[in-house]
Amino acid sequence: MHVLVIGSTRGTGNLLVRQLLDRGHAVRAMVRDPAQGPALAGLGAEVVVGDLEGEFDRCIPGVDAVAFCAGSGSATGPDATLRVDLHGAVRIIDACVEHGVRRYVQLSSMAADDPMQGSEAIRHYLAAMHARDRILDASGLDATTVRPGGLTHDAGTGRVRVGVPTIGERGTIPRADVAAVLAACLEEPTTAGATFELVEGDTPIATAIAEVVRRGRSA
Amino acid sequence: MHVLVIGSTRGTGNLLVRQLLDRGHAVRAMVRDPAQGPALAGLGAEVVVGDLEGEFDRCIPGVDAVAFCAGSGSATGPDATLRVDLHGAVRIIDACVEHGVRRYVQLSSMAADDPMQGSEAIRHYLAAMHARDRILDASGLDATTVRPGGLTHDAGTGRVRVGVPTIGERGTIPRADVAAVLAACLEEPTTAGATFELVEGDTPIATAIAEVVRRGRSA
Repeated sequence: MHVLVIGSTRGTGNLLVRQLLDRGHAVRAMVRDPAQGPALAGLGAEVVVGDLEGEFDRCIPGVDAVAFCAGSGSATGPDATLRVDLHGAVRIIDACVEHGVRRYVQLSSMAADDPMQGSEAIRHYLAAMHARDRILDASGLDATTVRPGGLTHDAGTGRVRVGVPTIGERGTIPRADVAAVLAACLEEPTTAGATFELVEGDTPIATAIAEVVRRGRSA
Repeated sequence: MHVLVIGSTRGTGNLLVRQLLDRGHAVRAMVRDPAQGPALAGLGAEVVVGDLEGEFDRCIPGVDAVAFCAGSGSATGPDATLRVDLHGAVRIIDACVEHGVRRYVQLSSMAADDPMQGSEAIRHYLAAMHARDRILDASGLDATTVRPGGLTHDAGTGRVRVGVPTIGERGTIPRADVAAVLAACLEEPTTAGATFELVEGDTPIATAIAEVVRRGRSA
């Protein structure tokens, strides 16, 4: 499989690049700054320059799937949340429709189904995730939306807990396990159409993905 | 016609309340602060208390149409743009679907079709409008989306220029004329499904609305 990873330079997206390469897939890594390229090329990724606030059209054609893991980060303001996390994603969705890249896995956030659940401090962020996830749903793409709890830097365990569509209580999860779940979704096309929450747990990832497929179908 | 106006206390929404009442319609005005009620009740509106960041469920049932004119204003930050302008609108859309209020007129903004056209200073705002308009489109409601140019406090002229879906150049328009166009859209159900830009011009509003209907159908 040939996957474009957006948000490839750090965090969950960077771990996803590594895991997809380890699993034998071809990875195209989109970077904003060419200086970010060599580290990713050194891992074995194809590096393309693209900017969610500018041009990225050359990044899309030719891949089998897109994994959207980009975020402007907590250090930027909510104006960047709107420009990058929300509108950058919307433009990528539109470009996938235009170029016929139908398979799309989106890294969202727990509670994005109902931003009113969130604290005042993060409600604006959840509002952006909520809108983004709905626009993806309406796009007609074969999309899987993954909504993890609070991300940690702990080592991955390979075990998780999923809720389809929601878990009903807060939790955390290592970024490495989120990346493994994103990779598993990319490898399992029948997760298309599913949206699920994800925290650390006791269920092997393959079993959890089977649960997502089963419950996503009955939803 | 019985219309719920959201954003009724100031600006275009307040002018819409006055114009709808002048035209003989019943107006329900949603206000966040009960202290805002008497001024609207004095005009002849039914006043209901509701908060786009809180509860508003009692505001929706029983009306024939909703006109969404609320905005957090330029004095608030982009976090409020996300919480109020975007997510408040999304929640109202969902409530209209839930309560079977099918007719919806949304006050949007010129260039919301392509926020990348906007200056860096307003791009985040246009990104919110863009997402909001797409979520309304996907809602299945009988929606009309009105995207005026820069709003002025000049007296209304009753004459405008429309572009379906876009005009292709910038312009301004008095708030009073935008309110008159919103009222005309509410009175013309065949504008449902149309999205158009609006600036000041030479065309009588009734003629402009007929153009929106004709070109909206052929789009």
